[in-house]
Amino acid sequence: MERHFDEELRILKEKLLRMSSLVLEAISSSIKALGNRDTVLADKVIKSDDIINMLEIELDEFCIKLLALRQPEARDLRFITSSMKINSDFERMGDHAVNIAELAQDLIRVPQLKPLIDIPKMADLVQGMLKDSLTSFVNNDVVLAQKVCESDDEVDKLNDQLYVELVSYMMQDSNNIERALELILVSRNLERIADLSTNICEDVIFMASGRVIKHHIEEK
Amino acid sequence: MERHFDEELRILKEKLLRMSSLVLEAISSSIKALGNRDTVLADKVIKSDDIINMLEIELDEFCIKLLALRQPEARDLRFITSSMKINSDFERMGDHAVNIAELAQDLIRVPQLKPLIDIPKMADLVQGMLKDSLTSFVNNDVVLAQKVCESDDEVDKLNDQLYVELVSYMMQDSNNIERALELILVSRNLERIADLSTNICEDVIFMASGRVIKHHIEEK
Repeated sequence: MERHFDEELRILKEKLLRMSSLVLEAISSSIKALGNRDTVLADKVIKSDDIINMLEIELDEFCIKLLALRQPEARDLRFITSSMKINSDFERMGDHAVNIAELAQDLIRVPQLKPLIDIPKMADLVQGMLKDSLTSFVNNDVVLAQKVCESDDEVDKLNDQLYVELVSYMMQDSNNIERALELILVSRNLERIADLSTNICEDVIFMASGRVIKHHIEEK
Repeated sequence: MERHFDEELRILKEKLLRMSSLVLEAISSSIKALGNRDTVLADKVIKSDDIINMLEIELDEFCIKLLALRQPEARDLRFITSSMKINSDFERMGDHAVNIAELAQDLIRVPQLKPLIDIPKMADLVQGMLKDSLTSFVNNDVVLAQKVCESDDEVDKLNDQLYVELVSYMMQDSNNIERALELILVSRNLERIADLSTNICEDVIFMASGRVIKHHIEEK
């Protein structure tokens, strides 16, 4: 049974990896759709959310099955319950990608306000954080997790910069207001994705220390 | 042990109730701070987030302890894993209340753009959804859960209305831009809290049907 359980944990990791790939694809496509003014791609992101939602349910059920059948302890138990949390974080990131795709659809209908520079930069950073957050979780890599938490400051800074810049566009000409507002919302959605990656990494860091605490309880 | 476990599940429900009370208090205070232009209250909301974060960890650890020591099955297992998810939803709602309090602090520093009518209305609706979502979960009340999901449409409608109204304020006078933008963000934060309550209720509905599915798997 031990070997069987190891195999199941490997499948769980694979499922998480697939989930993160789908979400990364959704984020990258939503930003590409915005940049290339590609309605078809924006539509694709919105439609692909169903797949992400279904995978979330599948992954959740898989975890509950593992808890019920294998009754894992200590480290494995924590790994599974954290996987359930991360799964739900990923699903939410997917929702943010959909929000961006919907904003892109609005923005494509009107002339471009300005060439996009900071938003794709922010998106690259956010995607890197997402990838690293999963890697840090799967490999239990506290150093990488800390790096992700630090990158969040950079994302916040870009988000603040964009806010100031876009408000000044609004001030200059009232014709800019709606477009600038929608770009602010795109940037907020990216910032939320970064926050969710940071959450994952905070859990990784907490798990590393939490295990020690738990160990003491078990000793008692 | 059975009776002991029942008592532990009762404690778990109590902890969730306490968590939801703290979050409700944070939301209501953040909106009150905005309406009454009360900086002290806004500060209080921001500071109280630490308590919510600590309770999240405590609740999470309690759930993991129950899973490890009691190795629950079927219904109890699902109740505990769902509690962990709801716990993290509540914590995020707390973050949104902090966002609102921070926006309130900015808005208090400048003259009021317009009397607040729709935002307090939206906040009341959202708080009702939050309360009902927990009740539906604890009592396994699918009808109430469905009602919450329906209320989400009303919140979305108010959010859209406010958006249109506040953009028109921006258009009228560029001096309104920053204040109107911040009110749009307040409304978005309320809308996210409503979404999180809806998530909880979707889980309640899924649990009701999921148990049937799970039952079939167990039969096999």
